[in-house]
Amino acid sequence: MSHAISPLAPKSYPELPPIDGVRLATAEAGIRYKGRADVLYASFDRGATVAGVFTQSKCPSAPVDWCRANLNVGAARALVVNSGNANAFTGLKGAEAARLTAELAAKAADCRPDQVFLASTGVIGEPLDATKFEAVLADCERRAGGFAWDDAARAIMTTDTFPKLAARTADLGGGAVTINGIAKGAGMIAPDMATMLAFAFTDAPITAPALQPLLKRAADKSFNCVTVDGDTSTSDTLLLFATGEAVRAGAAVIDDAKDPRLNGFRKALEDLLGDLARQVARDGEGARKFVTVEVEGATSAKSARRIALSIANSPLVKTAIAGEDANWGRVVMAVGKAGEPADRDRLAIFFGDIRVAAEGARDPAYSEAKASAYMKGDEIVLRVDLGLGRGKARIWTCDLTKAYVEINGDYRS
Amino acid sequence: MSHAISPLAPKSYPELPPIDGVRLATAEAGIRYKGRADVLYASFDRGATVAGVFTQSKCPSAPVDWCRANLNVGAARALVVNSGNANAFTGLKGAEAARLTAELAAKAADCRPDQVFLASTGVIGEPLDATKFEAVLADCERRAGGFAWDDAARAIMTTDTFPKLAARTADLGGGAVTINGIAKGAGMIAPDMATMLAFAFTDAPITAPALQPLLKRAADKSFNCVTVDGDTSTSDTLLLFATGEAVRAGAAVIDDAKDPRLNGFRKALEDLLGDLARQVARDGEGARKFVTVEVEGATSAKSARRIALSIANSPLVKTAIAGEDANWGRVVMAVGKAGEPADRDRLAIFFGDIRVAAEGARDPAYSEAKASAYMKGDEIVLRVDLGLGRGKARIWTCDLTKAYVEINGDYRS
Repeated sequence: MSHAISPLAPKSYPELPPIDGVRLATAEAGIRYKGRADVLYASFDRGATVAGVFTQSKCPSAPVDWCRANLNVGAARALVVNSGNANAFTGLKGAEAARLTAELAAKAADCRPDQVFLASTGVIGEPLDATKFEAVLADCERRAGGFAWDDAARAIMTTDTFPKLAARTADLGGGAVTINGIAKGAGMIAPDMATMLAFAFTDAPITAPALQPLLKRAADKSFNCVTVDGDTSTSDTLLLFATGEAVRAGAAVIDDAKDPRLNGFRKALEDLLGDLARQVARDGEGARKFVTVEVEGATSAKSARRIALSIANSPLVKTAIAGEDANWGRVVMAVGKAGEPADRDRLAIFFGDIRVAAEGARDPAYSEAKASAYMKGDEIVLRVDLGLGRGKARIWTCDLTKAYVEINGDYRS
Repeated sequence: MSHAISPLAPKSYPELPPIDGVRLATAEAGIRYKGRADVLYASFDRGATVAGVFTQSKCPSAPVDWCRANLNVGAARALVVNSGNANAFTGLKGAEAARLTAELAAKAADCRPDQVFLASTGVIGEPLDATKFEAVLADCERRAGGFAWDDAARAIMTTDTFPKLAARTADLGGGAVTINGIAKGAGMIAPDMATMLAFAFTDAPITAPALQPLLKRAADKSFNCVTVDGDTSTSDTLLLFATGEAVRAGAAVIDDAKDPRLNGFRKALEDLLGDLARQVARDGEGARKFVTVEVEGATSAKSARRIALSIANSPLVKTAIAGEDANWGRVVMAVGKAGEPADRDRLAIFFGDIRVAAEGARDPAYSEAKASAYMKGDEIVLRVDLGLGRGKARIWTCDLTKAYVEINGDYRS
């Protein structure tokens, strides 16, 4: 489980402020790991509105089923996240384990089980012994406070090599609001640890019907723009809890996602989730280079996005970047296979500011030396201009290295 | 360019018989390689009907454009294939190089340029100097004979580690017909060598309108069931030439793909192309295991195929197989992400005959020791039963090893 910290990790971690109405604690339940926290408990004493975005997998985990079913029941009162076991593909027992976890948290928080939100990450297919949470959650409730953000980010890690944290502030109709976020990556470093989890907490007073479209849109612009290997977890979960306590500091109560007073908050939320999403790509398994794929000139934004994903998920493009090779032939291949409108003879390809191909052939001014020098950097921007329209898209990813295969080809131990 | 022969290569290569009406020669044009044949010339003295299936890429190579344009002009008289340069993404110059090649071959074969079919495989984006073919093709025409099948299969190799050949015979309305086939793989071992090419030749008297649907259907059951990494070449080409000479041995002339007398030929063709397609997967870059993915119980054949491809293209499934790990959690993930109807709680997963998961959870009788022993073999069958309907599909692929990354991450030299 011990892997060297990604060379793309941030140089320092931000210190997150308390969010009024949110208390946190972490604990060791011994689900799978020894000697480290593997449970995160968050309590919302006066309740919080909640919005969620989940995996599109047709085989979701039991906690995903649980959250989806309870998203519209009213105020959230607690969140329980465990690492080490995903409680996915565990059949009816998995659903029972989720229910028992929620019941134990409800007892600790003195609320109804359907006010408890759940997420699990770790091995797939292993039964989760939820009875281990009983003493742990009661103790967490006693200890929970406002400052344990770094601990929280670490407790939900599986094989991430660094904790992922971010905070933003915004004005909301005259009062300041704060958003904190933590995430764990698709650092599928040890087998079956493929889950992406992210949790954001704010004191903004935003009702659930307004919060959900805000979160969905922000997810589309952030986490849905990250790919490591195109594989989709059974457990991907993004939850946003809003305690509303900032109303006491003058923030406006918002019940419509289209309210213009939300502009600052929307931007801050998108910025925060974008930050966390890029941190996830930077901790991609075996990643040595952080790659931004930009597609422009497509016939539509949707088309641009498909082409960008085709490039970002192409093993041949990703191995070329690992090899520090400005291999635009493979980019042509990935554009061509996307199935979207493209005209070979209008295509231009750039690595950074260097145009390597234009009008269907190698750029006459192409310099291998310049391109090679650029490819040695640890942040690569690959830009494709289709020359057809105004559609554009941006996707974040990482390179595909031997370490990826090594890590994922290790036998489960 | 010298790579060890794939451990999955056949133990011996078949000796292919002559096909009446087909003469072959190979030559060294020095396009890129030194000291090996890089041109295949085939001549059909009395003409041949022709059918073709090509890459779906929106950025196809110049030879693909050329073949598509000439597929319906009548009798084929020659085929020219070169290795070392794909003549892809070479702009207008590429189209000119293709035309010049066809003109030179037409001069050699004494036919029209539009009766010449072309394929190129090798580096993308490098201009192809077709003037090098002039003396070479005239000489090939003089030397061409009926027996050079092994040489032909070797001349079209780029970074394949072994030549791919197969032959079949069938009865066609009372007369025996023969089909020979050669292929080069998506052995994308050296960068930009991603093309899959396959050529089949028969003496069967089948008209072009009947030949095309036969080939399309056979391609769907063979080459379209192979994936190495989900990347699609700009140059994939499958051509079938039918000289009709077997009419002299009593074979019936067929002008309708639905003619019941074609049953034997159809089966032989599908069998031949399936054989070649599996050889391509066995020569997948870095492949150490040949993997058959079988999906059954899907709501339709199309749905089964999508799920099988999702499994076969999943880097996490492929690295697990490389690691000899019966990691069914990743198979669940790949089923779930396919976006096709699936019910987690009806899903069963088998490695070989070993059921590892059933009814949404690990099989109670699962034995890690047995599964591990099975995974050590070099041929793995991964079967998924969705338990929903009668749709089924089969896909051939290979594992994803560190050698794949090493090979594809090498800087172009």
